[in-house]
Amino acid sequence: MPMYVVGHKIPDSDSICGAIALAYLKNQIGEAAIAARLGELSPETAFILDRFGFEAPEFKERYAGEEVYIVDHSELTQAPDDIAQATIVGIVDHHKLGDLTTSTPLECWIRPVGCSNTVIKMMYDFYSVEIPADIAGIMLCAILSDTVIFKSPTCTTADIKCVEALAEIAGVEDYKALGMEMFKVKSAVEGTPARDLVMRDFKDFNMNGNLVGIGQLEVIDLSVFDDIKAELEADIAALKAEGNRHSVLLLLTDIMKEGSEVLVVSDDSELTSRAYGKATENGRVWLDGVLSRKKQVVPPLQDAFA
Amino acid sequence: MPMYVVGHKIPDSDSICGAIALAYLKNQIGEAAIAARLGELSPETAFILDRFGFEAPEFKERYAGEEVYIVDHSELTQAPDDIAQATIVGIVDHHKLGDLTTSTPLECWIRPVGCSNTVIKMMYDFYSVEIPADIAGIMLCAILSDTVIFKSPTCTTADIKCVEALAEIAGVEDYKALGMEMFKVKSAVEGTPARDLVMRDFKDFNMNGNLVGIGQLEVIDLSVFDDIKAELEADIAALKAEGNRHSVLLLLTDIMKEGSEVLVVSDDSELTSRAYGKATENGRVWLDGVLSRKKQVVPPLQDAFA
Ligand SMILES: [Mn+2]
Ligand SMILES: [Mn+2]
Repeated sequence: MPMYVVGHKIPDSDSICGAIALAYLKNQIGEAAIAARLGELSPETAFILDRFGFEAPEFKERYAGEEVYIVDHSELTQAPDDIAQATIVGIVDHHKLGDLTTSTPLECWIRPVGCSNTVIKMMYDFYSVEIPADIAGIMLCAILSDTVIFKSPTCTTADIKCVEALAEIAGVEDYKALGMEMFKVKSAVEGTPARDLVMRDFKDFNMNGNLVGIGQLEVIDLSVFDDIKAELEADIAALKAEGNRHSVLLLLTDIMKEGSEVLVVSDDSELTSRAYGKATENGRVWLDGVLSRKKQVVPPLQDAFA
Repeated sequence: MPMYVVGHKIPDSDSICGAIALAYLKNQIGEAAIAARLGELSPETAFILDRFGFEAPEFKERYAGEEVYIVDHSELTQAPDDIAQATIVGIVDHHKLGDLTTSTPLECWIRPVGCSNTVIKMMYDFYSVEIPADIAGIMLCAILSDTVIFKSPTCTTADIKCVEALAEIAGVEDYKALGMEMFKVKSAVEGTPARDLVMRDFKDFNMNGNLVGIGQLEVIDLSVFDDIKAELEADIAALKAEGNRHSVLLLLTDIMKEGSEVLVVSDDSELTSRAYGKATENGRVWLDGVLSRKKQVVPPLQDAFA
């Protein structure tokens, strides 16, 4: 019986490329594995898969009775709904340790680096399995995406070295240009419904018993949001009510100016003051230098709820 | 500020030897680290440290404000009481994934092998750090202890290969003889108070909201318990009441006959029937082939509570 390798809900490029890369590795070492996904591909991920000639992994929501290898998180809220009826055989991740638990021993490859695919590269090295050029290509793109082309504070020297090694294998000469191409695809928000944009990279967190949703849109220039910001704000307010959430934050991240405008709806009007020392004005606050949800947005928020 | 490397409460040889071995490795790669312990050494662990010339790690119970690297578990109940006020920077383990969580990214080296020290050996290999002979000796003993000299179903080929490599480094010619010597020390229970024996290798588990304590004593011949079994039973009944536990199990494991007599006090008289398909008689049940708490005792019990 093959295991399923699957990333988080509302998959990002790390989740999708990581599932493909890890499933390939597992098959190479004699453990049958199938890459799967919990949601639609983002335009960025579709661009990456198309660029290197991959099909989307199998869309699969139910895992009861299956063996599952989790990619890019360790959170119940981001896992398949029926994960309690599945057997988690492994986790590869680069986030804080979440609330997934198991009743049997498993493997966890978790490192404080910029991207799960950097950890998956370590797994290839550990097992001495050669990375095919096309898989190196998608791993490379996932790392450039998660680290915002090395600009994110989550980026480590391990990520940079990994990208350089993968670029060599993939035959990508100018990986920064590839990264910019990718972020241009990501910046094309015009004509997309507000809900689709809000949900494009959205994660729910359990913060001391409160459900907090945080979305992020990374673009090359925030002006793309000028005409739709009010729509986005109306939509996160609706999302908060629909999901009984305590708060919903939407990060509009300018990767060139290196900061994020955060749109906030919350039961606590002091939330950003307490978490980031800066109050919202009309539900908006600019956080200079903030590029990383994982490293700069979630931990202070977690502390504000503690 | 150095990190503290610390195993679980009521430390076993894996926790103590692992803390020493990992702290040494961390210092070698430029991360200051101090081995610590949460409790007294067992006679077995004292024997190992004495044999290879080590002092006991620092006894330390409070970790608020410190960085902590956790060895040999990922459970809140087995961690320092103030772990929520500390920063967990890493976990090395070989058990099921427990309920520890963090608010920041960390490293987790968790593998489904027989002993945390087998995973620590992988860490040495990853960082290309040479293992000193005396550290190889205590790592070797920890693996022989956790795998019951390879007899436990938790033992993997990785553990066996690791022991062979470590024996070479440590200059131990007959590691099985060393293992038997160690288990003879462990079998000397005469004259030890019942509470000390029950607590020697005792772990509390949160099973679907119920506190379940499971102790284990591994000996070469169960006859050493003939005169004290009633005392042990009275003591686990007391322990159940003191801690408001749902159940307390004490595994008396015969490593030569390869099975365990389990002494049981529980709010649920059907517990072993539901978990292991075998009822207790007068609070006792023989489970043939059962050597491993982690692999053979805990998971079915967890399922019985689900
Ligand atoms: Mn990621
Ligand atoms: Mn252990």
